Amino acid sequence: MIDRLIRKIKETENPTVVGLDPCLEIIPQGIKSDVFHGLGRTPEAVGDIFFKFNKAIIDSVNDLVPAVKLQIAMYESYGVPGIASYIRTIEYAKEKNLIVIGDIKRGDIASTAEAYASHIGGIEIEGKVYDCWKEDAITVNPYFGTDGIAPFLFNCERYGKGIFILIRTSNKSSFELQELTVAGTGAPLYHHVADMVSSWGESLIGKEGYSSVGAVVGATQIEQGNALRNKLPHVFFLVPGYGAQGGRGKDLKGYFDRDGLGIIVNSSRGIMGAWCKDAELSQDPKLNIEFAQASRKAVLEMRSDLQLAMEG
Amino acid sequence: MIDRLIRKIKETENPTVVGLDPCLEIIPQGIKSDVFHGLGRTPEAVGDIFFKFNKAIIDSVNDLVPAVKLQIAMYESYGVPGIASYIRTIEYAKEKNLIVIGDIKRGDIASTAEAYASHIGGIEIEGKVYDCWKEDAITVNPYFGTDGIAPFLFNCERYGKGIFILIRTSNKSSFELQELTVAGTGAPLYHHVADMVSSWGESLIGKEGYSSVGAVVGATQIEQGNALRNKLPHVFFLVPGYGAQGGRGKDLKGYFDRDGLGIIVNSSRGIMGAWCKDAELSQDPKLNIEFAQASRKAVLEMRSDLQLAMEG
Repeated sequence: MIDRLIRKIKETENPTVVGLDPCLEIIPQGIKSDVFHGLGRTPEAVGDIFFKFNKAIIDSVNDLVPAVKLQIAMYESYGVPGIASYIRTIEYAKEKNLIVIGDIKRGDIASTAEAYASHIGGIEIEGKVYDCWKEDAITVNPYFGTDGIAPFLFNCERYGKGIFILIRTSNKSSFELQELTVAGTGAPLYHHVADMVSSWGESLIGKEGYSSVGAVVGATQIEQGNALRNKLPHVFFLVPGYGAQGGRGKDLKGYFDRDGLGIIVNSSRGIMGAWCKDAELSQDPKLNIEFAQASRKAVLEMRSDLQLAMEG
Repeated sequence: MIDRLIRKIKETENPTVVGLDPCLEIIPQGIKSDVFHGLGRTPEAVGDIFFKFNKAIIDSVNDLVPAVKLQIAMYESYGVPGIASYIRTIEYAKEKNLIVIGDIKRGDIASTAEAYASHIGGIEIEGKVYDCWKEDAITVNPYFGTDGIAPFLFNCERYGKGIFILIRTSNKSSFELQELTVAGTGAPLYHHVADMVSSWGESLIGKEGYSSVGAVVGATQIEQGNALRNKLPHVFFLVPGYGAQGGRGKDLKGYFDRDGLGIIVNSSRGIMGAWCKDAELSQDPKLNIEFAQASRKAVLEMRSDLQLAMEG
């Protein structure tokens, strides 16, 4: 996964990940009305609306970005039709040659983690293997320690997949646990997690020097992120918190390595909801149809913003 | 949720939670053959098989236990049909008047946690509210701190639901993070989490003195669990790790309060897979049909085992 991701970043000259985290408020009325008219105001309709919306955005930006990230919670809210829409979006993004990251933040004890690891390896039914989810990489929670991570590592190796383990999240309260100082080390808890992530990924380092075991490092605590980059030379960062949560390209300079690699930066609302900020588009339902063009423009702007930081 | 749970525990004189965590290996051949014959060896068939199996166990034990717990990972492995089977099982268990705990261990930043909180509060679609999941309580991961928990607390209050936050899990590697000593306190990380859980639940304490914000405390580190009971007089414990993972009733004496309340103890494989341990049943496919009777017997044994500990 990781070498393929890096190749795609080089091809597109863009470390932007488009976050496909739909919610009804940022979807143009035109799409919603049509589907609600046919299916009623139902979870089935929302699943359909999300897919149509995602598809338009994928069609509009797939030549510009290496990857998309789907926040499963946005789909999971709508039960079975929501999950079906999540999977349908993954399939479509893969058809368009995008790398797909499932932002699922799963984590459990070993035997259960094994079941969750089917996201990146499929499941066997009496000798037949089914890949019901198809993500190329997923996000994982580290609270259970090594045996909760092992099944994911196994699938990374066996199926050429990847994981991004939470080290430092982008939300305000994240310091409450993540910054607790660990006795005897003088270092915060997230540094301890960082060391674990680094050691878990040691045997999965690819040709480009990065491991298929990456990390989630938010764009909102810049000094901490810079220190993590120096601490973790083989760990690729998935960086949330750009844009809507306050992160800016120039701040991320220290997250890149000397070759301008080492991170992918997610933006969800900033790209999907770009049309809402356009006075003309957002007001006129007939013009709403051009929402995906606004997303494309937002991706181009984000690419420029990040390229400044990459070039150092 | 919590007062209802305690009432049911008193009615049944049993703090046992039946873990409905199916996997194909522990399902009798009779059930599997029938469904595979009709639907092929597909995820759809597995969803159907899981439901049939769960239904028989629910029918057999629903008068004996207060609650069931579903480990969503076991269903999620099979994609959309797996999730459909999870939800169908929840609906059936609720028809039978059982309290349903979704062991989903979700956790994320605030805006995303809000989406996950739909598990215990539903979702609004243009003014219409849908409850797509219907759990009475769910398990939650604390790694994000207060703002990642707030949306769940809001739904606990608004919809009379509950959460169980991970404090101390039952797996071997759990010490790696959970037992790190926090500088300045001399206490392990999980005590810090325990204090947070206690304070998050303060405003949600019910008539019986327990909060709707409970905790997951494994049955495998007994001394630690005993200390947590003393530390957290208002926090109800959901206790995994009984049976298959090594926990025994007599060890759990200190987990109960003076009234013999304060915990529910989960057993999954020990109850669902009880028939596999019966030499006659497990060998003869015609007898397999009685598997649910073996589960009932296992529940009765577990009740006796726990009652000894409850009585102190």
